[in-house]
Order: sequence, then structure tokens, then C-alpha cells
Amino acid sequence: MRLYVTPASPWVRRVRVTILELGIENRFEFVQTKWPHSWGTQTVAVAPDFAAATPVLRIPALIADGVTLTDSHSICDYLNAEFGDYRLLAREGTARWQALAAMAIAGAIIEAQIMQRAELLRSDEERSNDFIAKMRDRSFRCFADLEKHHLPRFGAAFELAQITTAVACSYDDWRYGRDWRSSAPKLAAWYDSVADRPSLKATQPAETPQH
Amino acid sequence: MRLYVTPASPWVRRVRVTILELGIENRFEFVQTKWPHSWGTQTVAVAPDFAAATPVLRIPALIADGVTLTDSHSICDYLNAEFGDYRLLAREGTARWQALAAMAIAGAIIEAQIMQRAELLRSDEERSNDFIAKMRDRSFRCFADLEKHHLPRFGAAFELAQITTAVACSYDDWRYGRDWRSSAPKLAAWYDSVADRPSLKATQPAETPQH
Repeated sequence: MRLYVTPASPWVRRVRVTILELGIENRFEFVQTKWPHSWGTQTVAVAPDFAAATPVLRIPALIADGVTLTDSHSICDYLNAEFGDYRLLAREGTARWQALAAMAIAGAIIEAQIMQRAELLRSDEERSNDFIAKMRDRSFRCFADLEKHHLPRFGAAFELAQITTAVACSYDDWRYGRDWRSSAPKLAAWYDSVADRPSLKATQPAETPQH
Repeated sequence: MRLYVTPASPWVRRVRVTILELGIENRFEFVQTKWPHSWGTQTVAVAPDFAAATPVLRIPALIADGVTLTDSHSICDYLNAEFGDYRLLAREGTARWQALAAMAIAGAIIEAQIMQRAELLRSDEERSNDFIAKMRDRSFRCFADLEKHHLPRFGAAFELAQITTAVACSYDDWRYGRDWRSSAPKLAAWYDSVADRPSLKATQPAETPQH
């Protein structure tokens, strides 16, 4: 399988951690993509094979056997079912719905983090400080909600809801260094307890190559 | 179950069409939400019950039996499994992955449509015409991709990939009235062939109440 990646994207990292937790990394060719900072507002030039893989022109994108999946939700659902025997996400029932509920909140944080990043890449004239505050406030509300409603259900297994949550926590520290921990101190303690897992250590974020 | 909605949101409409196609509308209380146009860049005031339901402060949000789901992906997955016997989306296997592949593309269109809407609600000073062009171009690439790679697999059953695609087509006509049909004439013909379904007629988009 071929997976298009960047080292900065939390959506990519979620998939890469899933792959490492399933122990199937030798099945993949990882293709690095490059993104000039103008991606925040413009359609940027990409390699022909990447353009052919995904009309969305975003990462992650997975070319698998007979199917191409162009967002992390579908990719994780596919890998968990076909290569993980539903080990990281229950196939059905209450366990699945509780995990999807947590992932929707953690995913909303990641989406807000990325939208804030795109906003920060705008020119001074077109940048909205209101929008940046809106994305920050959404992220912090969601961290607090994860602590209150979802952290108490986290079990011993590091499954997809926990993977997504850990990636959101880590991205905030790496990209913004802001004080989400005051909004969710118990969640921060949980994150610190999992941050040294090999799958997370092997996928620490780094700046995406621009050229 | 309680579902928070607006009449304009394509994400909400996707869930409402799913509910109608499953014939389970009598199980829901539909709660209308109101959104001043400042939502494009600001955290707007919402009703206390809505704020308690979702830290994301976005619609749709579903309060179901023992679980609250705050995005259309998890809501549709839940309703299809618990109330639809997997009739609108296969539980596993190639049929599921092909449907998720199409939904990722159609969902990327809806996301681009909404981000463009938020951009258009900005002040003249903070509006990026580059960003609007980027969202338009992404949408049109994705319509063409749906026509080329996914339309040929559409079957007789109006399932979740088709629902999502139809909602994206309809929103473009309603909100923007732009010529996506030239990018995807066969997809447009397909959309015209399903547009009179009762589930789509009953959920035609309308402007969201601002106050």
C-alpha cells in the first residue's frame, strides 16, 4: 500500500500511529509530500502521482488494494477492520459508539488546530484574529470535554480514540505551546503517561518540507 | 433521540436524509439552532442545552441513548448500524471501503462548500479571494472525480455514498448556483434523476435563522 504523508500533519500521524500499533508498517510505502506555506490560501503544485491519487489534494491519502481512501477516518476504519481484527475500534455496539463520540471531539480539535495553522499562514491583511480565537476556544472546550466525558472511559488498550486524543494533545504542544493543560489537567496527566509509547515516539511531529 | 439541526447545513441534511431513508423520523426530536452571520469568524452565543450537548458548538449533534455524537460521520455510522441493519452502508468488506472512498470525496466537497461560506461571511478586509478560488477548485475536482471513479459503482439503492453526493450537488446549486455540471455532466444527470426522492424533497435547504 502507498500512503502519502507529511511529518507535521496530525491527521497523517493518527494513521501512522495506527499502522505502528497494528504492527503492519512493512506493508506500506510512505511517500513524503512537500507544501509551500501558500497552501493556507492557495491550490499549490503537487507531484503528478499525488494529484492522480486524490482530487482533494490533502494528506493522508492511501492507495490500497482496489480502493483509494482520502481522509484519516476512512483509512483508520479500513486498516482496523482489514488488518487489525477490530482491535483498535470495535466493529459495532456501545464500545464503537463511545469511541466514535470521543474521536469526533478529538477530531474537532485537530481540525481547529489545522484551520488555525492555515489562518496563521495568511498575509497580515487577510488574517482574522477573531477566527484564531474561535479555533483556540473550540480546541480548549474540546480538551475539557474529553477530560470530563471520555477520559473516564479510557481503558488499558491504546486504541483509536486514545490515539486521536494523544495526537491532538501533542500537536498543541508542538505547534502552539499554549496552555491547554489548565483546561484539562487530568487529560494532560494521561497524555504524559502515554507519550513515551514507541508508536508516538517514532512519529513526533516535525516541520513539513516546503520545497 | 434529540438532533440539533439547521435548514441550511449540508452536514445536517445528510443525517436528515439518512433518517428519512431509514423511516425512523418519529424517533427524533429535531431542535432548530440559530446562527448570526458572525459565526464565520466568531464563537457565537448558543442556547444552554446546545452548549451542554456539544463542546464543538456545531451542527449536527445527536443525543442518543447513552451516547452523544457530534459529527455527521459518526451519527450516520451509528444510525445505519443500530436502526438500519447496515442497509445504507455495508458493515465491512469491499462494499464498505468503496462507499467510504466516495464519501470522503463527497465530504471534501461539503467541507469546502462550508469553508467557502464562512469566508464569504468575513469582512471585505479579511476575505481571501485566493482561498475562495481554492475551495471552488477543490469542489470541482472532486465532482469530476466522483463522476469518473464512483458514479460507475452507484447501484439502485440510495445509500449513504449517494446521499452524501446528492447533498453536495444540491448545496452547490442552492448556495452558489455555479457551473459544477460542466465538470461532471454525467454526475449532474444522475443527481437530476434522484433529486425528486421524498427524502431529498423534504429536506430542501433554506436559510438558517440568524436570531
